[in-house]
Amino acid sequence: MIYFDNASTTKICESSLKYINEFSVNNFYNPSSIYKQGADNKKEIDAVKSIIAKTLGVEFKDNIIFTGSATEANNIAIQGSIKKNFGKLLFTEGEHPSVYNTASYLKNKGFNVEFIKLNKNGEADFDDFAKQITENTSFISVMHVNNETGAINNLDKFIELKKNICPNAIFHSDGVQAFGKLKYALNNDIDLYSISAHKIYGPKGIGALYIKNKNKINPIIFGGGQEYNLRSGTENIASITGFKGAVEEISYNSDNVKAIRDYVIKNLEGDFKINGNGSPYILSISYKGINGETIVHMLEENNILISRGSACSGSKVGNRILSSMGLPNDYVKGSIRLSFSKNNTIEEAKIVTQKLNECVSKLKGM
Amino acid sequence: MIYFDNASTTKICESSLKYINEFSVNNFYNPSSIYKQGADNKKEIDAVKSIIAKTLGVEFKDNIIFTGSATEANNIAIQGSIKKNFGKLLFTEGEHPSVYNTASYLKNKGFNVEFIKLNKNGEADFDDFAKQITENTSFISVMHVNNETGAINNLDKFIELKKNICPNAIFHSDGVQAFGKLKYALNNDIDLYSISAHKIYGPKGIGALYIKNKNKINPIIFGGGQEYNLRSGTENIASITGFKGAVEEISYNSDNVKAIRDYVIKNLEGDFKINGNGSPYILSISYKGINGETIVHMLEENNILISRGSACSGSKVGNRILSSMGLPNDYVKGSIRLSFSKNNTIEEAKIVTQKLNECVSKLKGM
Repeated sequence: MIYFDNASTTKICESSLKYINEFSVNNFYNPSSIYKQGADNKKEIDAVKSIIAKTLGVEFKDNIIFTGSATEANNIAIQGSIKKNFGKLLFTEGEHPSVYNTASYLKNKGFNVEFIKLNKNGEADFDDFAKQITENTSFISVMHVNNETGAINNLDKFIELKKNICPNAIFHSDGVQAFGKLKYALNNDIDLYSISAHKIYGPKGIGALYIKNKNKINPIIFGGGQEYNLRSGTENIASITGFKGAVEEISYNSDNVKAIRDYVIKNLEGDFKINGNGSPYILSISYKGINGETIVHMLEENNILISRGSACSGSKVGNRILSSMGLPNDYVKGSIRLSFSKNNTIEEAKIVTQKLNECVSKLKGM
Repeated sequence: MIYFDNASTTKICESSLKYINEFSVNNFYNPSSIYKQGADNKKEIDAVKSIIAKTLGVEFKDNIIFTGSATEANNIAIQGSIKKNFGKLLFTEGEHPSVYNTASYLKNKGFNVEFIKLNKNGEADFDDFAKQITENTSFISVMHVNNETGAINNLDKFIELKKNICPNAIFHSDGVQAFGKLKYALNNDIDLYSISAHKIYGPKGIGALYIKNKNKINPIIFGGGQEYNLRSGTENIASITGFKGAVEEISYNSDNVKAIRDYVIKNLEGDFKINGNGSPYILSISYKGINGETIVHMLEENNILISRGSACSGSKVGNRILSSMGLPNDYVKGSIRLSFSKNNTIEEAKIVTQKLNECVSKLKGM
C-alpha cells in the first residue's frame, strides 16, 4: 500500500502514540483538578505550549490555546474576533472551508466580507489585495500554505502593506499545511495563527490557535473557563501530549518529498497542468478531459491512495480553488492531489508515476 | 493511591485504548476520503453511533453527531437552537457551566433567559418550573444527573408538563453524568441530549449530541461540512472508536458504587450534611465550619484523590449549586465531592472514610 494523501491526514508517529497511551492510562487526571496530579498535567500542557511556541518562533506567554481541531481554531480566530462595528473583512479565495465558510456565514449576516482573488499559481493575488485593502479594514485572513495546491503565500509581504494601510486590523493565518513543514518564524504582526496535529503525524481531534493578544478575542464555546476562558471543555491531556510527540519530531528536512515531487512531475505523461509550485509536500495535477475521481479509484485498485483534492468537501472545494486560479473547466474535472510524508520514498514515487501514467493512458484511450 | 474523583474524569479502559491505537496506526484514514479505507472509517463511525443510539434507547437515524467535548455538545444544543424570535428560555440553576454560562451569555445578549430553582435535594424544583413555564417558552434545558451532587431530575415529569404547556419548545438535557450509569431510554420528546466519553472510561476530547430533528439545529462551527454539516472538522476516528470501547463496557451494575457510597455515609463522623441523594456514583458532603479545600489536600497527602466539587470551575461552581439548594454558607465552604467508578472497592471506601474522619477531627480541633 502506498499512501500519498498526507495532506488529508497522516499516520500517527510512535512518539505521539506513546504519550497518548501514557496520559490516557497513567496520567489521565483532569488538568483542572486542584491536587498535584491535576496541577502536573496543567504544567505539562504549558510545557507543550512552550514547545509549540518555540516552533512558531515566538515566546510563550499564555498565548496558545488548544482546540478540538484546526477547524475550530479557525472559527475561534474569526468568530471570536468579530465586533459589531467591524469594517471590511478580507479573506482569500484559496481559504480552507473552515475559513471560507465562516467568512461566507458572516457575509450572510451582513458583514462587509470580501475575497481576494488567486493568481494562476494559486497564491493570493497581491495586487488584488492592495486594491481591496482600505483604512477601514478590520480583519484579514491569508492562509499560509494552500491545502489543495501547496501554493505558499508570502505572509510578511501582506502584513507589510496591512501595517501601512490599517495597522489596527487583525491579521489571521491558517497555518495548518505550513506548520512543521515550512520553516517560518511568525511575523510579530500576526495576531492569530491556526495549526493542527494530525497533518504532522499527531492525533486527530486536536488543533491549536496562537493568539497574540487575548483581549481581542471572545470565546465561542462557553463553559468551565479552561484555556484562559477562551475555549471551555476538559483539557484533552492525552491528545495535547500526542501533539507534543508530533512537534518533537519536526525536522524541516524535506529532501525526500522534494525528490518525490520532482520525480513525479518529471515523469508524468499525458496532457496535464501542475497547479501551484510551493510546498514540496503537495502536488496538484489536472489532466485535460478525464475524470479525477476515476483516476483516484483506478489507483486505489493498485493499492495507491491519493485524493481528488481536499477531503473536507470533496470535489466542490477542488473546483472552487482551481477555478479561482483560472484553470479551465476541462482541466478542473481531471484534478488529483498527491501529498507526501517524510516516510514516503522515491521507490513509491516510481510505482505511483508508472501506475498513474497507465491509468491516464487507459482513460484517454476510452 | 485511591481515586475517588471519577465524576471529574476517569482512567481509560483497555477496550477504549485498544481502539484508539488501532485507529491511530492501522486505520488512521480520513473518514471523508473517497477511497475504501476512508469509506470504511465513515461506516465505522455510523456503527459507533448505532451503538450509542441503542444505549440511549433510540433508533439510529443520522441523529447523533460527535463533538470535541460534551461542553461543545451543550453549546451546539443551545446556541445552535437559538432563533431570533425565541420566547422564554428555561434552564435550571443546577446546570453545568457549559450550559449555565451559555445561558448567561444569551441572557446578556438580550434573550429572555430564566433559571429554575433547585430544591434542597439538588433537583430542579418542579413547582418553580411549573410557575415559570409559559406558552411562549421556546427552549428548556434540564440536566439529567447533577455533577456536583448526583441529584437526578425526573426528565419525563418535566417533559409531560412541557408537552401540555408549550409542545413546540425544544427540550434539551445534559446527560453527561447519567449516560452509561443510569439506565434510561430517552423520552420521545427529548430533542437534544449531550453525552461524554471521558466520564465513562473513554477518551477525553470526544462528546456526542443526540439530535432528534436536525432541521431545528444550526452549526456553530463552520467548515468542511462533516457531521451532516452540523459540526465541521476531520472526524476523530480514533477517539470515536475509543468512545465505542467505553460504551461496549457499560453494564449498569452499580452494586459496588452503591455499597461504597452507603458505607462512607454510614461511617462518616463530624458535623456534616449529605447534599443530594440520587446517583450512587457521586457523594457530596458538606462539613460545618471547616475548609473543603484543606480536606482535599490532607487526603491527597494520604494518596487519596477527591475534589472540592466540579473541576470545571473550582470552588465557584460548588458554591453556586449548593447555595442554590439553600445550604448555609458555613457548610458550603466545607464541601467535598467523592465520586466513584466501577473499579473502586469497599476496601478503598474503608480507608477513605477513616482518613476523612481523621482529617475532619484534626481540623475541628485546630
